[in-house]
Amino acid sequence: MEKYILSVLVENHAGVLSKVAGLFSRRGFNIDSLAVGITQDPTVSRITIEVTGDENTVEQISKQLNKLIDVIKIKTLRNNDAVKRELVLVKVRTTSKNRSEIVQIIDIFRANIIDLSPNTVTAQITGGDSKINAFLEMLESFGIEEISRTGMVALERGTSILKADK
Amino acid sequence: MEKYILSVLVENHAGVLSKVAGLFSRRGFNIDSLAVGITQDPTVSRITIEVTGDENTVEQISKQLNKLIDVIKIKTLRNNDAVKRELVLVKVRTTSKNRSEIVQIIDIFRANIIDLSPNTVTAQITGGDSKINAFLEMLESFGIEEISRTGMVALERGTSILKADK
Repeated sequence: MEKYILSVLVENHAGVLSKVAGLFSRRGFNIDSLAVGITQDPTVSRITIEVTGDENTVEQISKQLNKLIDVIKIKTLRNNDAVKRELVLVKVRTTSKNRSEIVQIIDIFRANIIDLSPNTVTAQITGGDSKINAFLEMLESFGIEEISRTGMVALERGTSILKADK
Repeated sequence: MEKYILSVLVENHAGVLSKVAGLFSRRGFNIDSLAVGITQDPTVSRITIEVTGDENTVEQISKQLNKLIDVIKIKTLRNNDAVKRELVLVKVRTTSKNRSEIVQIIDIFRANIIDLSPNTVTAQITGGDSKINAFLEMLESFGIEEISRTGMVALERGTSILKADK
């Protein structure tokens, strides 16, 4: 079992996301994460889906997605061929006593403090799986109050391009 | 018309995302962006949805979402009460001639280069709407080849917490 990333260009219509997500749930394919945003062409959105599975399953999913009417193009990215990043916001419980320790951890991970209150620190971090997991693990002992994750986005390394060509 | 952010805690089941997205499309509510990721409790996901509308419409959406069986909690965040961030990966066409100009723009916006090839630069940027739009506008004249956006994530400022309490 390996992690794959499906980069899916779709028409930016209401309902497309629901269809794409519905296909996964109906077929019992498990989504690790999903992110959606518009592209340089505002009529086109890019959905990035991270799935764990074997090559065969991923090929099946890709074929099923291709049959959906609003799907324009799909590319499967392999881990080594892609730059993958996720953004995570995390709010941690803090006191005046342990704040400097938390701030130090945030600095070490090159994360940023984006909000501060007497009892909480809110940080943002960008990175791949392992960096983000290590960061969250370090913060866990202080008490994580809230997390908001974007899901993974990715682009293929080098000059390859996935474009809608409309 | 104002931008609102709905922060929705849901059961991490296959099919929930499809139901939530389906509700928006059936009712004709337009989604500006949507991001989904797991929380500190892996059985719970947080869906962040950005919508443009009036207060009345947003209240309606929130009520409809609350009726869905897998929705645990919802909070509507107003712009001034929340820290909002999005992550964008962007691949730009480049030559040896204009590369230093592109690198300078990336530096000015505190974005980062995450991949380089003889003909392309891939950068990541994190920020709010206006920063990201300004960055993409600056890069447009060079030729944007690919964009992968996460959609907005947000956490309420200060000590307020939206938690599943399971």
